[in-house]
Amino acid sequence: MATTYTGPVIPAAIEPLISQRAKDLLQKVWDFVDTECIPAEALFHHQISTDPAKRWASYPQIIEELKEKAKKAGLWNLWLHKGYKEGPGLTNVEYALMAEIMGRAGHVAPEAMNCAAPDTGNMEVFAKYGNDAQKKQWLVPLMNGEIRSAFAMTERFISSSDATNIQTSIRREGDEYVINGNKWWISGAGDPRCKIYIVMGKTDAGNPNPHKQQSIVLVPAGTPGVNIVRPMHIMGYDDAPHGHMEMTFTNVRVPVSNLVLGEGRGFEIIQGRLGPGRIHHCMRTIGVAERALELMLRRLTDPTRKTFGKMIGEHGTVQADVAESRMEIDSARFMVLNAAHMIDLHDAKSALREIGMAKIICPSMALRVIDRAQQAYGAEGICQDTVLPNLWTHVRTLRYADGPDEVHRAQVAKLEMRRAKAVVQKIEEQERRSAMLLGQKAKL
Amino acid sequence: MATTYTGPVIPAAIEPLISQRAKDLLQKVWDFVDTECIPAEALFHHQISTDPAKRWASYPQIIEELKEKAKKAGLWNLWLHKGYKEGPGLTNVEYALMAEIMGRAGHVAPEAMNCAAPDTGNMEVFAKYGNDAQKKQWLVPLMNGEIRSAFAMTERFISSSDATNIQTSIRREGDEYVINGNKWWISGAGDPRCKIYIVMGKTDAGNPNPHKQQSIVLVPAGTPGVNIVRPMHIMGYDDAPHGHMEMTFTNVRVPVSNLVLGEGRGFEIIQGRLGPGRIHHCMRTIGVAERALELMLRRLTDPTRKTFGKMIGEHGTVQADVAESRMEIDSARFMVLNAAHMIDLHDAKSALREIGMAKIICPSMALRVIDRAQQAYGAEGICQDTVLPNLWTHVRTLRYADGPDEVHRAQVAKLEMRRAKAVVQKIEEQERRSAMLLGQKAKL
Amino acid sequence: MATTYTGPVIPAAIEPLISQRAKDLLQKVWDFVDTECIPAEALFHHQISTDPAKRWASYPQIIEELKEKAKKAGLWNLWLHKGYKEGPGLTNVEYALMAEIMGRAGHVAPEAMNCAAPDTGNMEVFAKYGNDAQKKQWLVPLMNGEIRSAFAMTERFISSSDATNIQTSIRREGDEYVINGNKWWISGAGDPRCKIYIVMGKTDAGNPNPHKQQSIVLVPAGTPGVNIVRPMHIMGYDDAPHGHMEMTFTNVRVPVSNLVLGEGRGFEIIQGRLGPGRIHHCMRTIGVAERALELMLRRLTDPTRKTFGKMIGEHGTVQADVAESRMEIDSARFMVLNAAHMIDLHDAKSALREIGMAKIICPSMALRVIDRAQQAYGAEGICQDTVLPNLWTHVRTLRYADGPDEVHRAQVAKLEMRRAKAVVQKIEEQERRSAMLLGQKAKL
Amino acid sequence: MATTYTGPVIPAAIEPLISQRAKDLLQKVWDFVDTECIPAEALFHHQISTDPAKRWASYPQIIEELKEKAKKAGLWNLWLHKGYKEGPGLTNVEYALMAEIMGRAGHVAPEAMNCAAPDTGNMEVFAKYGNDAQKKQWLVPLMNGEIRSAFAMTERFISSSDATNIQTSIRREGDEYVINGNKWWISGAGDPRCKIYIVMGKTDAGNPNPHKQQSIVLVPAGTPGVNIVRPMHIMGYDDAPHGHMEMTFTNVRVPVSNLVLGEGRGFEIIQGRLGPGRIHHCMRTIGVAERALELMLRRLTDPTRKTFGKMIGEHGTVQADVAESRMEIDSARFMVLNAAHMIDLHDAKSALREIGMAKIICPSMALRVIDRAQQAYGAEGICQDTVLPNLWTHVRTLRYADGPDEVHRAQVAKLEMRRAKAVVQKIEEQERRSAMLLGQKAKL
Repeated sequence: MATTYTGPVIPAAIEPLISQRAKDLLQKVWDFVDTECIPAEALFHHQISTDPAKRWASYPQIIEELKEKAKKAGLWNLWLHKGYKEGPGLTNVEYALMAEIMGRAGHVAPEAMNCAAPDTGNMEVFAKYGNDAQKKQWLVPLMNGEIRSAFAMTERFISSSDATNIQTSIRREGDEYVINGNKWWISGAGDPRCKIYIVMGKTDAGNPNPHKQQSIVLVPAGTPGVNIVRPMHIMGYDDAPHGHMEMTFTNVRVPVSNLVLGEGRGFEIIQGRLGPGRIHHCMRTIGVAERALELMLRRLTDPTRKTFGKMIGEHGTVQADVAESRMEIDSARFMVLNAAHMIDLHDAKSALREIGMAKIICPSMALRVIDRAQQAYGAEGICQDTVLPNLWTHVRTLRYADGPDEVHRAQVAKLEMRRAKAVVQKIEEQERRSAMLLGQKAKL
Repeated sequence: MATTYTGPVIPAAIEPLISQRAKDLLQKVWDFVDTECIPAEALFHHQISTDPAKRWASYPQIIEELKEKAKKAGLWNLWLHKGYKEGPGLTNVEYALMAEIMGRAGHVAPEAMNCAAPDTGNMEVFAKYGNDAQKKQWLVPLMNGEIRSAFAMTERFISSSDATNIQTSIRREGDEYVINGNKWWISGAGDPRCKIYIVMGKTDAGNPNPHKQQSIVLVPAGTPGVNIVRPMHIMGYDDAPHGHMEMTFTNVRVPVSNLVLGEGRGFEIIQGRLGPGRIHHCMRTIGVAERALELMLRRLTDPTRKTFGKMIGEHGTVQADVAESRMEIDSARFMVLNAAHMIDLHDAKSALREIGMAKIICPSMALRVIDRAQQAYGAEGICQDTVLPNLWTHVRTLRYADGPDEVHRAQVAKLEMRRAKAVVQKIEEQERRSAMLLGQKAKL
Repeated sequence: MATTYTGPVIPAAIEPLISQRAKDLLQKVWDFVDTECIPAEALFHHQISTDPAKRWASYPQIIEELKEKAKKAGLWNLWLHKGYKEGPGLTNVEYALMAEIMGRAGHVAPEAMNCAAPDTGNMEVFAKYGNDAQKKQWLVPLMNGEIRSAFAMTERFISSSDATNIQTSIRREGDEYVINGNKWWISGAGDPRCKIYIVMGKTDAGNPNPHKQQSIVLVPAGTPGVNIVRPMHIMGYDDAPHGHMEMTFTNVRVPVSNLVLGEGRGFEIIQGRLGPGRIHHCMRTIGVAERALELMLRRLTDPTRKTFGKMIGEHGTVQADVAESRMEIDSARFMVLNAAHMIDLHDAKSALREIGMAKIICPSMALRVIDRAQQAYGAEGICQDTVLPNLWTHVRTLRYADGPDEVHRAQVAKLEMRRAKAVVQKIEEQERRSAMLLGQKAKL
Repeated sequence: MATTYTGPVIPAAIEPLISQRAKDLLQKVWDFVDTECIPAEALFHHQISTDPAKRWASYPQIIEELKEKAKKAGLWNLWLHKGYKEGPGLTNVEYALMAEIMGRAGHVAPEAMNCAAPDTGNMEVFAKYGNDAQKKQWLVPLMNGEIRSAFAMTERFISSSDATNIQTSIRREGDEYVINGNKWWISGAGDPRCKIYIVMGKTDAGNPNPHKQQSIVLVPAGTPGVNIVRPMHIMGYDDAPHGHMEMTFTNVRVPVSNLVLGEGRGFEIIQGRLGPGRIHHCMRTIGVAERALELMLRRLTDPTRKTFGKMIGEHGTVQADVAESRMEIDSARFMVLNAAHMIDLHDAKSALREIGMAKIICPSMALRVIDRAQQAYGAEGICQDTVLPNLWTHVRTLRYADGPDEVHRAQVAKLEMRRAKAVVQKIEEQERRSAMLLGQKAKL
């Protein structure tokens, strides 16, 4: 890589996995993010009202303009991998590289290209598990970027990382399901364009199999009994108007046709929703880290920021920080791309260990990289004059979202320790041979 | 990867780079290491005399037996990559995977397959820079495994990581070079089969270009004036009979025909010697880490080692150690393989940053992995009853050998910071667009 | 310490330094913080308007109520150490223990007891360097808690950690100083009760001695030409109505009698302001860490938060986190108390190394402790439902405020390396003796 | 502390705990270690035979000479703290400071002053639990430095960190105990002067209380049936002639009068043996770290070791290493001294948490400090030309000896978590008050 290169990164050893078409598209994604999305960030934030009364009532207009541009440029629904005929037919590895670039402008770019969470995961739910009517009503406008959606699973007062703890009740009454429960951290539910909630709850709380108790039903925005209580803040940010909302569902009634897949199949659906989505999160996080490192490079070489006669980047410890960041980013990227390729080769279940490792590695890595950049910027690195504090904060949530590091680490360990039996057999066989050799030779 | 799999690892995303022939060969290397080399380790150490008088006089016979087996099995000189017609024509990536396996039995396997340092690097010197006579006299028997060799560069009392500091004098007198100097840590010079020293020194100490002062000459073992002073110990090990020797050269005379390449070209030669060798070291280190993790898995699941009612592997912190080790090994492997592929695509110089990163990452990673295994084994992990202390000690030397981590980290930082100018231009352009957008919209 | 103890901590080895009177006062501080301040936090935040128009116009009334209580209880101006007759006559070590307790309720407790930054440092400036008129006008109402103050030093666009970089101009015109400059991160300047800015700038920019160029002048709030531009945000928080403000000074005129100490003596003043203040920051940070650990203990033992059948605190890795936190907090506390005692014995200058070490250690330590608590709380640990994100954010600023870690670390290294000469002499003498012994014995 | 100071360290905040007499003695210990012990190290190692036949047959004569000097100087049995009338009457804190100094020359200084493990612990066993005859026969010559002793507890094939796992059988037959078992890592048992083994085994393996099964009996060296199998190596060192030996006891018979304290009281004895001994280990480790840092300072300022134009100590990352080392050493010392003071105030049991923390912190800290010094020395830091590899290796054993870090960390966590109940009550009370305040004010 030439030292003046600033475009998308395809690691040399990965390149054989990337088609020329994907490379071309990747470059287009880069250009769009670089020249349209990042420059639009300031305006995006400017268009969010600071008036509490209006803050959640409209969405920055710039997003719609970017969506139009992206559609025209063919940069739309790129996340729909080979399995879906509606998409551009990229592999998970190919799209992962694009997700990285989108992550560089995380508030703007993914949505501009209709590749933003939670919609991507929700669209997968509709595509994989929805019936034709559900697809027509919700998947089509989602894929067109006409509406947005939310996935209402996590609840207050319980440990949601163990989904069997979920308490929301979905009770059938005649041709309706009646939903009662409290949900929080429902991302995107603050958005005035959010028209559909995909709600998880228990239809059969007494089922002896704890993975058969849950079901998923569709609740249109505005259904009576749905109440948005408040936005949850992350480290002082409310992420308006997207938002991560606390919601209550009080005797909310929807027709039984709003059930997805079948009663008791909620677990199956959330499992199917996770794999590629985790890859997307990881790659966006890598994009965040790359952007933070670029901002750091800028500060390090800023001739107006000398301390004690040296530019910041001339200090040895800061250089060590740069090197560490480069190594950590590059290492993490391989781990994610390898997991993506495992999904391409087999499926998400076969890539459980690899996805888990990527999920653990990326957020912590990016937090360290951003922190070093922030430290180089001093006070400026922690305030509204750089994107760094916002980047840091959003990455921080990924250390617990969708399962805390600790849970995933235990899972990786468990999978690794399954090898123990075969390993021990091999070592014992080696020891037998070793003893035999020693005995033979001792005789001579 | 099936959870009972214990064979060679080819990361999924790398597999397209590996030919079927290399895969077959890799499996053969695995089998040879697994069933021949590791079981031979105990005998290897048993065949080294503890009598100080005999300790350096002979070499364990088992090695010669393994060499015969390896030759017959076609597992010989595998390191000779595609550029050399004498070898099996593997890419650097393909051989790297084999080096990893050899590293699992580091005292035995590399030499058994004639792939051991420092001979591989020395053979490259002969092959790339030697004249026909030199090749005939030294390269042929080295490639046949008939003799061994040493590279005499590092010196006492100076910082050898900066090779311009070297003091040994090589003075021409008529048709001879006269060599005077003190060398230490000359690995392999203790071996009674070592027949040739490749010696670096200064033929032109006054040359204003500090990189033109050095030359390389060949000194056959037994030349008058060569004295082996003592073995250097590493953490209590003397590595007999291979050894890392302190040597003196006192008025040692060799014919001028023993000069390699030309006067003042010593630097050129050592530069050319380094790239792939570093990859080999890194991959062997990864093999060491994998072996340590396997040994750890054994202890963790040993039902006779319960503490406080649990097997060691049932403790959460130990499981976290296992997961960390798996993640660190896998990450490091990608970094090395990518560097190897960069060499395959271009050359070692183009892969400077990637090689440097691998060189920094692997030893520290392996030390952490081994240390966790040692900690699981308690006292047993630090004594002669496991290979772990020996593995740890040899990996430890790689944190300073061939340049300490600190130097390589500074080098990686320097290369990364070369991007700063282009990055700053890009960011400034983004800011111009951002301001324009804000201005435009503000007007509306 | 009994295992059910939850009061103030006096480490056993430090206890001889603490008088009985200080112990009694410490217990009173604990009780006040525990029963008055922490319970008042929610109301404090509730009393801050979310209406942008009113947010900076008033201060939570609860603070004034707490101030009254604290005054009555004799918990007022405790920071005024033995050197000041106006205070309670505590040593720095004794007050440090109290600062720790106040740090537990950092937004409320320090101010309630008139021990809050930046007022404490500013009062020291008036007490040590102010003339009688300045003391009467500003020190008296500050000590009475009638007004608040700000210290206007740091500037945008320069590296303020090197104070010679400061650009603000203070030009004498007749009997007035004319001030022009841009300041930011002026903490407390948002508070409507803030009546005085202590402003640093250059009266003699051409002085060849860069430490003689600066002076300090007093600028009353409301002086024409003073403009508060905006609040700086830290990770999404604006800290209203205290605030960290960007300000401009445009042809601001004050009488020459507003000069403190003398022209060119600005550096002297800021040096004198730092020592004990850093100790206070450190100890408050330790209080923050203790509080975070307590909150963590609560979550770990919450029976409603089981995951995979265990309370969070039953997981081994989480227990390891608890142990690490306890060890890190206790270690850090000793380092700060030792520095405080060095100030008591000598002065802040003699304690330069110890203060520097405490300054480096405490914020990073507390960030790790808080982060572990946050991780135990999951999403709740990062949102407005716990104090944890707010604690984390404010501690984060201490890694760069008043000099980044990197600068202090270099300073500590420099002081440590001053020992090198004497150490080398000693080692060389030992080596001479060692050689002599070896020689003597070899002769026998 | 003046920057040229190189003597013993008494942290300022600890000084009130140290009597003038102890300060004087501490200085004498320093002088003895500095001018006698460290210079004697080379000769000590020189006097150990490399001939396997003689290696374990004699002990370096220099030690006896140093013992004479130490006795004359009143530097003898300093470890006998206030509880023992035979000693100098130091507190544990006072002696701890001396142990630190002795640790700087760990192979030589502790024994020269009759303060070496395992004898100190063994002498405590005799003093606390021995009867008069046992004291006369063994304690007197041990206190005179006429013989040495070993403590035979740990066994192969079991996890000795859980002492209930011990298998050695001590069976009564008439007036004799018959001992059968395998022991390893019996430190000091290689020493030809070692005359007594204190052996732990089971007299009542069927006792339902697992802590009542063990007893301690005395086995004089040379008793028939005692066999020293081999020395255990630590990272390549055999520590001859002290040694860490594997031993077998085969039908070893001793009179019943050799029982210590009583049958079934083995656990009681080993518990009583541990507390102060752990403090000694910790403080010696701190001495090791200080010495390593001094050696590092030497290398950093060595003008002959320039790389890339700078002395090693002029590189910023190396300076950061120095600062980290200083901070870590100082922090650790406080933690140990505080634990020692807790023992002085109460007893070892009351200091369980503090001792545990010190036990975890010190070895890891010292390993990091030594590692940084080694890295500064390059190859020299890992070979026999510096003491660094030997220091590192012996400290490494302390991470598992006497319980691995993991076990102690779990213990510290357990003690900390005992506070949870009281903490939760306090927090809940605060929340009640908080709600009340919010309610009250809301009404207004």
